[in-house]
Amino acid sequence: MHKEFEIEPLWKVTRHLSQVARGAAVPDTVIRGVRPLCVFTEKILPESEVWISGGRIAAVVPAGSCTSDEAQFFEGAGAILAPGLVDAHLHIESSMVTACAYAEAALKNGTTTIFCDSHEIANVCDKEGIEWMLEDARMAALNIFLTIPSTVPATTPEFETAGGNLTPSKIGELFDAWPEAVALGEKMDFVAVASGDERAHAIIAESLRRGRPVCGHIYGRENVAAYAASGVTDTHEAVTAEIAEDLLRAGVWIFLRGGPPTTPWHSLPQAIRAVTDFGCSPKRVCLCTDDRDADDLFLFGMDWVAKEARRFGIPAPVAWSMGSLHAATRYAMDGEFGSLGAGRRADLVLTNDDGDVHATWLSGKLVIDGGHPTEVLERALQTPYRYPASAYQTVTLPNSPTLLPELPKTPCTANVIKIVTPGIETFHDRLAINPSGGWESLLTEHNLCHVAVIERHGIHGEVAHGLLQDFGITEGAVASTVGHDAHNLIVAGKNESDMKLAVETLRTSQGGVCVVRNGEILAHVPLPIAGLISDERATEVANKTSQLKLAWNEVGCQMPYMGFNLLPLSVIPNFRITDKGLVLVRNLKILPLFEDQTAG
Amino acid sequence: MHKEFEIEPLWKVTRHLSQVARGAAVPDTVIRGVRPLCVFTEKILPESEVWISGGRIAAVVPAGSCTSDEAQFFEGAGAILAPGLVDAHLHIESSMVTACAYAEAALKNGTTTIFCDSHEIANVCDKEGIEWMLEDARMAALNIFLTIPSTVPATTPEFETAGGNLTPSKIGELFDAWPEAVALGEKMDFVAVASGDERAHAIIAESLRRGRPVCGHIYGRENVAAYAASGVTDTHEAVTAEIAEDLLRAGVWIFLRGGPPTTPWHSLPQAIRAVTDFGCSPKRVCLCTDDRDADDLFLFGMDWVAKEARRFGIPAPVAWSMGSLHAATRYAMDGEFGSLGAGRRADLVLTNDDGDVHATWLSGKLVIDGGHPTEVLERALQTPYRYPASAYQTVTLPNSPTLLPELPKTPCTANVIKIVTPGIETFHDRLAINPSGGWESLLTEHNLCHVAVIERHGIHGEVAHGLLQDFGITEGAVASTVGHDAHNLIVAGKNESDMKLAVETLRTSQGGVCVVRNGEILAHVPLPIAGLISDERATEVANKTSQLKLAWNEVGCQMPYMGFNLLPLSVIPNFRITDKGLVLVRNLKILPLFEDQTAG
Repeated sequence: MHKEFEIEPLWKVTRHLSQVARGAAVPDTVIRGVRPLCVFTEKILPESEVWISGGRIAAVVPAGSCTSDEAQFFEGAGAILAPGLVDAHLHIESSMVTACAYAEAALKNGTTTIFCDSHEIANVCDKEGIEWMLEDARMAALNIFLTIPSTVPATTPEFETAGGNLTPSKIGELFDAWPEAVALGEKMDFVAVASGDERAHAIIAESLRRGRPVCGHIYGRENVAAYAASGVTDTHEAVTAEIAEDLLRAGVWIFLRGGPPTTPWHSLPQAIRAVTDFGCSPKRVCLCTDDRDADDLFLFGMDWVAKEARRFGIPAPVAWSMGSLHAATRYAMDGEFGSLGAGRRADLVLTNDDGDVHATWLSGKLVIDGGHPTEVLERALQTPYRYPASAYQTVTLPNSPTLLPELPKTPCTANVIKIVTPGIETFHDRLAINPSGGWESLLTEHNLCHVAVIERHGIHGEVAHGLLQDFGITEGAVASTVGHDAHNLIVAGKNESDMKLAVETLRTSQGGVCVVRNGEILAHVPLPIAGLISDERATEVANKTSQLKLAWNEVGCQMPYMGFNLLPLSVIPNFRITDKGLVLVRNLKILPLFEDQTAG
Repeated sequence: MHKEFEIEPLWKVTRHLSQVARGAAVPDTVIRGVRPLCVFTEKILPESEVWISGGRIAAVVPAGSCTSDEAQFFEGAGAILAPGLVDAHLHIESSMVTACAYAEAALKNGTTTIFCDSHEIANVCDKEGIEWMLEDARMAALNIFLTIPSTVPATTPEFETAGGNLTPSKIGELFDAWPEAVALGEKMDFVAVASGDERAHAIIAESLRRGRPVCGHIYGRENVAAYAASGVTDTHEAVTAEIAEDLLRAGVWIFLRGGPPTTPWHSLPQAIRAVTDFGCSPKRVCLCTDDRDADDLFLFGMDWVAKEARRFGIPAPVAWSMGSLHAATRYAMDGEFGSLGAGRRADLVLTNDDGDVHATWLSGKLVIDGGHPTEVLERALQTPYRYPASAYQTVTLPNSPTLLPELPKTPCTANVIKIVTPGIETFHDRLAINPSGGWESLLTEHNLCHVAVIERHGIHGEVAHGLLQDFGITEGAVASTVGHDAHNLIVAGKNESDMKLAVETLRTSQGGVCVVRNGEILAHVPLPIAGLISDERATEVANKTSQLKLAWNEVGCQMPYMGFNLLPLSVIPNFRITDKGLVLVRNLKILPLFEDQTAG
């Protein structure tokens, strides 16, 4: 927490706070003329005023109670005053900005506390990267807690090459060194966990033995029982109401993930039916954003997710409670965050009846007013954490990577990755191909493009080749050093020269995303920190990302940029590509690109 | 926890448990043919079976899933299988039994986890007494956690003389030495807390600085804001729906206290209206028993409280959830207790649709079957903790205490304690009296009896005298060394000689409760441990208590035995008697028994 917003721990101030609450001492700030949203009773209260002292809530009292002229008053004009939103699970790196920069967007959207999992930077820079980000978080104008990355690498060196390898002992060291580390992050290798994998359970043990909860990530229903029995107590991957109810029954908190409707991760509308249709209590249901690119970060924040929950049938106070108190409760931090309860941090949001955020307070200080950062926030944003030089040198590519596979000599079967937007899943298709017409006719005939993943951590520089079906790109190439989770460089395109330009562009910027066409760079978002993150302000990165998306569409890509980044994530169904080759996820098996070639 | 029921911590067994859950290893026990009560979704599920391994729940699976003949099967015959109840707040000493003995009654009533506050023994034996009881708890067949007594003595030496004085540093030492100490116990001096009293807040700080919650006890609405701002986050004293909603809004968990309807503490029916009538969410509402004498312990357990919640309009699965998961969540222990979630302790209860308990499992072992202890429980009950010799020598009375006050010589005003059953409150009445006819006519005319409180910790041996109006006793005397919270000896009666016999009876037994009449002891429950607790089995103590109550009624007492024990509790409204005199609670002021005496 940036020093501007640091406050005393509750145990040091209960005496003074009690005196403010009973009217024997004057509050610092009084927010009056507001209707408090009570996340405990799940009701919106009549017009009241909220007394703040030392950055904490002293009391919520009837309108007109404070008559002192020493307090600073803020007029709410009848609006709703709610607790700041608490994002139960996200990855800052997905937003391509630092933690310090992330704060601005979060606060604009009424989010004041986040639980982030820095497993992207961990996959590139190992434990050191996590510690940089924790230092970053300590200077941010936001309450930031870490769920320690649990699955780095996401699979094993046989299936992908990552820059990080978080062993159980490193995870234990992080827990012991960083009080912000409050849980183990999403244990993504759910098949390994359910199968009793030794390393996976040793990592879980590091968290449980310290009394820290274990966060989850699981697809499908068949592994739920074994996964939950492994000590995992939340997930943000429930994509149907049936799965959500299975998980709730097994004692797993559900984090409803709202994502921009054009992306593959807006699972909230389906999962929420466990409450609205099946009648499950919402008390163990939270909200989260998970991944947002820099552009979407401003448009689809937690405030939007809460509105989506309302749109799909949850009463407003319950939806806001899911988005605040419930997450704080899940992490056993509800004495400090997520409500207007006495003694809690004065992290507050002023909204209209539709849930639009007009103002945000952090530690009792107004940080967003009318949608804009106030002076105190501006000041904090201008003294961010600076990552060390080594964070800027992480893209080590082979000199002249071979970007296209060898063209088969005879008709054969190609194992292609079939894209079906807007889903996260990809599919495995066995395509009978006849290569006699060369690459161009082959790509056109089957609506294919090239894809290659280049190891970029300077370990062996290997390249894997594949073919994407229905990716949609009609010309040029796109490339990214954000290639979940190992973050090798992924490039896709229609021709070798554009693919090469895209790769070299990212080599020069030491990371980023770009779109090229006919030898021209149409858009480029440089991400020099770990090849994942910009060091610019969030608004700047959002602008560049917005331009990137235009170019992305211009060359015809049907799968959005963030879906593309997930193509190398070999824990998501069904058929993926890493630097080690084409991975059939369910069987954890590598397939060749071409097979059944007749003898030449 | 008795060694018979100790199990491995979850972090050591997740691998095996996951393998059981996915069917790759055989569960120890399968409870089949049951309808699981899911406290997460708040629904009763279709017929299923529950797999148990190593004392933990591995999975809840569809009926007929386990086909191995190596597992031990238990046939549920269509009954409901629910998590063991979790009592959010109670005092074991009120039940006049040891922790080891308490377990039997708790398990019969479906309670498997309790949060107890040993402030009675602390008031007699200070920190040492708490540590004895913690040792006792470690040998009990029950999950017992301590909320460290926070208010010992309940007021100050000016207002009562206690045997204990729990300073902030002693409380800190208890937190650091005993992992079972999970919270600070009810901070009863709510007026002092709300007024910013230094010692009260130093004690609160000891808990909060260790990340431990602070439990509360508050009457009335006017101090709620200041009390909540002091960091207190629960209370079991909400006696109306309005107070309950005030407290919920302020971020305070509500523990609905169910008490036998004939006693003064059945506040559940009123407070529950915050949910049923006012529409507050029940998610921050728990159930508790608080105080039960040995007799009522068997009849009015947590199962009965949960049934009361249903009777007053809460759906069955929600009521059971209030009585299990919610308390576990309040103490951030829901990863281990209070549900049928995977990995949780297999503390289970088999009930019919009315909520009657038929069987109880502790750590996966059947302990109650058809209402009776099983062999494994019997074994555990026969090897209880033994309190040390010094625990048996705590009643040190003056040699010949003066039991009656001096009869005034002229008409005057008497400050009498007016009893209004069945309330907890007593009232202050100023009675114009004419003593010319002597005590007998005076008592008869105004429906009075004598009451005296004798300091019994061997400190100064002072005696305070008072008069009770409408207590109802018609002959003889009653006495008790359980006199909340300082536990001085309280005796009430119609004549001096019976009062004396009652006192001497308790001196001889080193504590207890008795009823005497015309020189005969009608009933006597010896409580030799700290003058509060019997070392007999709960069923024995219950029998003796039941006989005591008959005698209690026989001599005409209208206020029940436990209400009588509260007469010296100077933090309950409105007019009380301690060894220091008659205390007007709201003003914390001592009044003389007689005033306005005309000059003789």
